[in-house]
Amino acid sequence: MTKKGEQTRTKILDESARLFVRKGIGATTVNDILKATGTTKGNLYFHFTGKDEIGLEVLKREKQAFMNFLDTALGGETPGQGLNNFFKAAVEKHRRQDFVGGCLFGNTALEASDTSPDFATFVVSVFEDWITKITRKIDQTQQLGQMRRDIPARNLAEMVVATIEGGIMQARLLKSEQPLQHSIGTLQKVLELKA
Amino acid sequence: MTKKGEQTRTKILDESARLFVRKGIGATTVNDILKATGTTKGNLYFHFTGKDEIGLEVLKREKQAFMNFLDTALGGETPGQGLNNFFKAAVEKHRRQDFVGGCLFGNTALEASDTSPDFATFVVSVFEDWITKITRKIDQTQQLGQMRRDIPARNLAEMVVATIEGGIMQARLLKSEQPLQHSIGTLQKVLELKA
Repeated sequence: MTKKGEQTRTKILDESARLFVRKGIGATTVNDILKATGTTKGNLYFHFTGKDEIGLEVLKREKQAFMNFLDTALGGETPGQGLNNFFKAAVEKHRRQDFVGGCLFGNTALEASDTSPDFATFVVSVFEDWITKITRKIDQTQQLGQMRRDIPARNLAEMVVATIEGGIMQARLLKSEQPLQHSIGTLQKVLELKA
Repeated sequence: MTKKGEQTRTKILDESARLFVRKGIGATTVNDILKATGTTKGNLYFHFTGKDEIGLEVLKREKQAFMNFLDTALGGETPGQGLNNFFKAAVEKHRRQDFVGGCLFGNTALEASDTSPDFATFVVSVFEDWITKITRKIDQTQQLGQMRRDIPARNLAEMVVATIEGGIMQARLLKSEQPLQHSIGTLQKVLELKA
């Protein structure tokens, strides 16, 4: 692909990501994307077969970015500190976007679960990989005795992800970090994180 | 209104509710509603000014139904049993709908937070009233020593609602009760519910 072609492709994906996170993939039209990018219809269809392909490409790109975010956020001198750093980073991430848009994967989960199997299958993989990373960190933290050990790591990790998704939903609704902050604070207490 | 008019109005609200919970309010068109109800355009616009009015009416009706559900589900011989009954009823409610549709309020929260202030404001009131009811029950349970007392009732209630919303999201995505069941099971353990 030419350098100009590459730039157009990237611009379409960037602007589409912005639209999807605010409006949802379903409610975003190809015309919205054309308007946001200043691209012609011919140019867009030269790069993509349509909105569904753009949607999947955006999800793949955002998944990669999210996995990188998780790996960085979960870092710390000890596994317990890693978990605490992740909690802090999660609030910070949404504060930076002013609680607009929320979580693209959570939004797509609710939007696509019953109507777009391709998107749903992809989002399942995001949650699965997310839960796996948190499970591994919780497991290490438990082995070091830095948190409660009476509940399996995987179960705690599932609750952590559910609570964060629900907290983001409410923070976005109220345009305030308070619900997310509160839910995470309570999580930290009930996990008995000692780090 | 004539009896026939009343029936038409109810039918429009019933079918719209079904469409909204599956597709979201944003992606449902007036034409979808006409098709689902077999109503004429003239008839629909005789009863409603448009989709937004139908959306708000559906949300109001569903809120009333949800508050009735909560009051029934939270019943029990003791407050602690009430909480456990509510957890059971929450899984049962979504099992009955085969994990299709999920939670209309959660869906609308994600859909409307950034784009439809009227819907968003209404959904805030649903979550607020839900959290208030759970807070009251947790407070009673704490006072009777039937659960942990070291975290304020309101904070625990916020985490309960966030976890359930996140759990419904994942159950709906996987079309399996497991994520919701797991998250609720872990919640019950960390709340140290003794009832």
